[in-house]
Amino acid sequence: MATLIAPDHSFAIEDAEVLRKAVQGLGTDEKAIISIIGYRNAVQRKQIRQAYEENYQEDLIKRFESELSGNFEKAVYRWMLEPADRDAVLANVALRNVTQDYRVIIEIACVDSPHELFAVKQAYHLRYKRSLEEDVALHTKGHFRQLLVALVSTYRYGGDEINASLASEEANILQKAINGKHINHEETVRILGTRSKAQLNATFSQYKIEYGTSITKNLRGGPDDEFLAALLATIQCIYAPQKYFAKVLHNAMHKVWTDKDAVTHVIVTHAEKDLKEIKELYCKKNNMTLEHAIDKETSGDYKAFLITLLGTQNG
Amino acid sequence: MATLIAPDHSFAIEDAEVLRKAVQGLGTDEKAIISIIGYRNAVQRKQIRQAYEENYQEDLIKRFESELSGNFEKAVYRWMLEPADRDAVLANVALRNVTQDYRVIIEIACVDSPHELFAVKQAYHLRYKRSLEEDVALHTKGHFRQLLVALVSTYRYGGDEINASLASEEANILQKAINGKHINHEETVRILGTRSKAQLNATFSQYKIEYGTSITKNLRGGPDDEFLAALLATIQCIYAPQKYFAKVLHNAMHKVWTDKDAVTHVIVTHAEKDLKEIKELYCKKNNMTLEHAIDKETSGDYKAFLITLLGTQNG
Repeated sequence: MATLIAPDHSFAIEDAEVLRKAVQGLGTDEKAIISIIGYRNAVQRKQIRQAYEENYQEDLIKRFESELSGNFEKAVYRWMLEPADRDAVLANVALRNVTQDYRVIIEIACVDSPHELFAVKQAYHLRYKRSLEEDVALHTKGHFRQLLVALVSTYRYGGDEINASLASEEANILQKAINGKHINHEETVRILGTRSKAQLNATFSQYKIEYGTSITKNLRGGPDDEFLAALLATIQCIYAPQKYFAKVLHNAMHKVWTDKDAVTHVIVTHAEKDLKEIKELYCKKNNMTLEHAIDKETSGDYKAFLITLLGTQNG
Repeated sequence: MATLIAPDHSFAIEDAEVLRKAVQGLGTDEKAIISIIGYRNAVQRKQIRQAYEENYQEDLIKRFESELSGNFEKAVYRWMLEPADRDAVLANVALRNVTQDYRVIIEIACVDSPHELFAVKQAYHLRYKRSLEEDVALHTKGHFRQLLVALVSTYRYGGDEINASLASEEANILQKAINGKHINHEETVRILGTRSKAQLNATFSQYKIEYGTSITKNLRGGPDDEFLAALLATIQCIYAPQKYFAKVLHNAMHKVWTDKDAVTHVIVTHAEKDLKEIKELYCKKNNMTLEHAIDKETSGDYKAFLITLLGTQNG
C-alpha cells in the first residue's frame, strides 16, 4: 500500500498558483512546495505541471531545478517526473555513474510489471534516442551482461498461471546450475530472463521445499562475483521486493555516510505503491521506525519532504 | 507498397452476408469467399469477423476451418487473423515444428517495427499464456539461442538518428568478430541484438565502404553453422527485407516440392505492406513474374486466392 496522502480531487490550477508564489521573487518557499507536491499523486502532479506550463509559460520541473539544491532538489526532481520517465532517468544515471550501481537496473527490470518495464523502455527511447538495452549492453561484459540485458529486454508473461512440474524441473536446473563449481550461466539466464514472475516464484518455493533452504541463502556468502550478486538481487526483487527494499534502506543508512541517493530512490519510487509494507518490514528488522531512522540521518527540507512522503499521519 | 486491392469503405454487414451464403448448405462457394476476403484490408476483415459473429453467433475463422481444407484453408486462416496475432501463430508453429524453421522467428523479430514486434509479443501472451522469449529460449541452445532470444526480446530504438563514428567502430568490431577463426559471438549478439535498425544499416554500409565487400558476402560460403545462418538471415532482414523475401519465394518454388507454407507466409504477410517491391525484385532476379511462378507451382482455389492477393489488376 501507498504511504502518500493525496486528496481525491485535483486542484491543479490552484496548486500551480501556490507553487508560482513559492518560486517567485527572492528566496524560495520550500515549505509551500512540500505542502503541495508532497500530497499529490502522479496524475495530479502531471496536471499541476500542465497547468503551470499553460499559465506561466515555463516548465515547473526546470524552475524547481533552478530554485532548489542538493538532495532536496534531486528528490523533488525525481518525484515530479512521471513514473516511467523517472525510471528511465534513474537507469540512465546508474549507467553513466562512475561507481556504476546496477542494482537500480535490476530493480526496474524485475520489480516493475512487464507493462511498466515496457513503458520505461519507451520513455528511455524518447529521452535518450537510444534503447535501454543498448546502453546496458554497452556498459557490461560477459555473463553479467547476458543476465542484465536479458532482464531489461524480456517482455515476461504477466499472468498468474503456473506449471508445477516445470517449477520442480527448473528448481532442479537452478540448483545444479548454481551450486556446482562451474556455474551454468546459460540455463540460469534463460530461466531468470524469460519465465513469468508467477512461474519463477513457484520455482523458488519449490527450491526451498526440495532442498530445504532458500535459493537466496545458497547464493549468499559465495564468491564475490558480480554475476552472483546480480543473480541474488534479481531473485530478491522478484520473490520479495518489499523485503529487498527494506534492506536497501537499511544498508543506505547504516554506513558512515548515508547513501542519500538510495534513500531518495526507494522513498520516491514506492511512496505511491508499497512503501507501507516496506516501512513495516524495515521496522520489524531494525527495531526502529523508518521515520525515526530518516529523522536521524537526514535534515532540512530534504528530511521534511521524505517524512511527508512517508505519510506519517497514517501511522 | 501493398498489392492488395481494397475498397475505401467497409461493407462489413453485406460482406458477412455473402460469406454466410458461401459457407451454408451443401458444398462451399470458395470463389465467393475469395471475391470478398481477397479484396479487404486488415481493418475491414476484422469488421467482417465482428459483423459475422454478431449476426450468426459463430466465429467466421472457425467456420472457414471446418469448410475449407489444405493449403487454401491455411492461407485463408492466416489471412483472416489480425497481423500481430498472425505473427504470434506463425512463430509458435515454427517453434513446434519438427523441422524447426527459425527463419520465421528472425523475420518477425527483424522485419517488423519495434512496436509491431511488441504487439506480436502481446498477442503471443494472450494466445499461449507464455512469452515468445521463453518458448524461443526453450527450443534453442548456445550462441544460436543467445542471438535468437536477443532478437525477439529487444525493444530497439525506432528513430532515424545515426551515429556515424559508432557505425564505423562497430563495423570494425563485426569485421573482426566474424572473420576470425574464433567468432566473437558476444559482441556480434550485442550489436545485432540491441542497436536500432537505422544504426545497424549505417554500420552495414560502413562495412562495405571500409572492407570493399558486403558483410553478408563475408558470411556466405562459411561453415555450415546455425549461428552463422541465423546471423546472415538477421542482417538480410534488417538491411534488405524485400530482397530477402524475394529470395525466400525463389527458394520455396525452386525445389522438387514447392514449399507452399513459405509461399503462403510471404504473400499473406506482405500483401498489405510491401509485396509490390518483393514482386519486382523477384521478377528482376528470376526473369519471370511472381504471378507466372505461382501459376506454375500451385493450383485450384489456393492459386486463385494467392493471385488475387498479388493484385494482378495493378500490374
